[in-house]
Amino acid sequence: MPSHVETLRWIGAERGHLVLIDQTRLPVDLVELECRDVKSVWEAIKQLRVRGAPAIGIAGAYGIVLGTQPAASGNQQAFFARLQEVAAYLATSRPTAVNLFWALDRMKDAAAAHRGKDPSEIQAALFAEARAIHEEDRALCRAIGRYGAQLLQDKSGVLTHCNAGGLATSEYGTALSVFFTCQDQGKNLHVFVDETRPLLQGSRLTAWELARRGIDATLICDNMAGQVMREGKVQAVIVGADRIAANGDTANKIGTYSVAVLAAAHDIPFYVAAPSTTFDLSIASGDQIPIEERSREEITHGFGRQTAPDGIDVYNPAFDVTPARLIRSIITERGIIEPVSRATIAQTIGRPSAGRD
Amino acid sequence: MPSHVETLRWIGAERGHLVLIDQTRLPVDLVELECRDVKSVWEAIKQLRVRGAPAIGIAGAYGIVLGTQPAASGNQQAFFARLQEVAAYLATSRPTAVNLFWALDRMKDAAAAHRGKDPSEIQAALFAEARAIHEEDRALCRAIGRYGAQLLQDKSGVLTHCNAGGLATSEYGTALSVFFTCQDQGKNLHVFVDETRPLLQGSRLTAWELARRGIDATLICDNMAGQVMREGKVQAVIVGADRIAANGDTANKIGTYSVAVLAAAHDIPFYVAAPSTTFDLSIASGDQIPIEERSREEITHGFGRQTAPDGIDVYNPAFDVTPARLIRSIITERGIIEPVSRATIAQTIGRPSAGRD
Repeated sequence: MPSHVETLRWIGAERGHLVLIDQTRLPVDLVELECRDVKSVWEAIKQLRVRGAPAIGIAGAYGIVLGTQPAASGNQQAFFARLQEVAAYLATSRPTAVNLFWALDRMKDAAAAHRGKDPSEIQAALFAEARAIHEEDRALCRAIGRYGAQLLQDKSGVLTHCNAGGLATSEYGTALSVFFTCQDQGKNLHVFVDETRPLLQGSRLTAWELARRGIDATLICDNMAGQVMREGKVQAVIVGADRIAANGDTANKIGTYSVAVLAAAHDIPFYVAAPSTTFDLSIASGDQIPIEERSREEITHGFGRQTAPDGIDVYNPAFDVTPARLIRSIITERGIIEPVSRATIAQTIGRPSAGRD
Repeated sequence: MPSHVETLRWIGAERGHLVLIDQTRLPVDLVELECRDVKSVWEAIKQLRVRGAPAIGIAGAYGIVLGTQPAASGNQQAFFARLQEVAAYLATSRPTAVNLFWALDRMKDAAAAHRGKDPSEIQAALFAEARAIHEEDRALCRAIGRYGAQLLQDKSGVLTHCNAGGLATSEYGTALSVFFTCQDQGKNLHVFVDETRPLLQGSRLTAWELARRGIDATLICDNMAGQVMREGKVQAVIVGADRIAANGDTANKIGTYSVAVLAAAHDIPFYVAAPSTTFDLSIASGDQIPIEERSREEITHGFGRQTAPDGIDVYNPAFDVTPARLIRSIITERGIIEPVSRATIAQTIGRPSAGRD
């Protein structure tokens, strides 16, 4: 088994299909799921079988290809109608990660650039664009790892939350890419992994990835992060991101904000690792980022067993927003943004290559 | 069903036995467990079937009665040897909550006061002392509720962590006694309940108690506490305590320290509610409080299902220590200690009525 995961694989050429690791089955079962139509991609994103902002973007791009396959032999008007319909449908799967909307827009732009050609040619262009999004992500993640590794000393303790690893991207991750790169460079880190309730992406996915790679890691409950910081075991925190506003406010998995406050209280630098595709320069601050609320059962019946009384009210936001002032720097494939401000972000990220409509 | 729980009940007179709610079965099943010997009490404490510092103290006192019953018909020397043995055994069940050691010492003192009498008379005195510890706890909790209710305004949002409720005491709780008293006074609170990983005392026990009483409550994961504070929904935090050092440093369920840091960052007052029996004036600061570490399976197999990869390293401290500087006041049955300092604690608590050896 290769030490890196292949989160998503496309089988065949443009008439082929998508295969992805069903992340809800980890860490016990490593099972792949075949997606042969757009509905199965939508369901995989919705149910978190594929998750992590960059991976959702890639899945969305391939979802467009699957959704337009049946229209490739029809007429142009029907093809573009189908494309719009499929893109609108995929956009309803999850609201917070901007990479999904970015990828859908980029796919629509690719089709528009071939308007007037035969639908089969446009379909070929869409497939090529999805492949490009997928391949580019590998390069982005490697670059993030190289920049981030400069920030960490040998023998550091580093804490991470949720999963910003290979499973959240094409193969190498964002926050975890930094750890993998340190390992490649011979630096020894000790990683503290927040289990990340309610869906335990930390214990199920991050711990699994680190164990596969032989990186020293200790699993803790989310409420132990303050304690390990207080014990002096943590020299840095690195997390991923689902959407970053123009001022640097960062939406990421629920609990990230608490970790950032705890890090500040212990004078520990807090880093966000994310590709430029995770920035949404169309919104001024984190207040405008829509936060997905998920079902009560994730908390009351986590893993099949009832752990809360019937009828209890539950609040289950899937994300929170960490204000820019708590973020020491943002590690991107274009370099390290520090300090984090509207000006430094504009300088490094500029307008995204394919902005939202 | 009465709205208050009866966490522990003694059936019969001094030859009787202890019955306690098996808290590991809540919130789905309300099942009582019969303890007819000291081993079953030790096991119930160790396995958290009975938990919460005051309740552990009461269980320990009854455990002494059960343990010495067989020696009550023997000679004096054998009786005292048995008493020492039973007390030493019970002391090994859990290390952090000081109420256990306080209760065991108080029982030994009660026996010593009757040295020279017939073992059956000493046994009767031990039984009376256990009953007294149990009854006194009810009064302590009611008084804590009355003092604490002065600190909360109508329509406040209050966050609590773990279970400092009826189930942690004889019937009314410490932190939860404040909420129950507010309810009796016609004040409406909205309580945010941290689920409290790994053993979910918040979702399983606190949410259950509040629902039984009809108190407005919302269950959240531990990592959402910062978010609800940031949203302005929390005006106060109240938690219980397992041991309070002479300077006010407070050991309580893991995660309490993180909540205290978050409360400070949001200018929210953080209160500890605990009877005088939870103070350990023999230790100068929280650094000297022993912190129990529990098994890895609580985190890796917490829901009956494996949720972390095989072999992953785990850190599972059951408690943490919140430094006095983060505590606005300590609510005791003798009044509110504020500010929290060695001097104010000495003034209110003085030397405990029965200090440790």
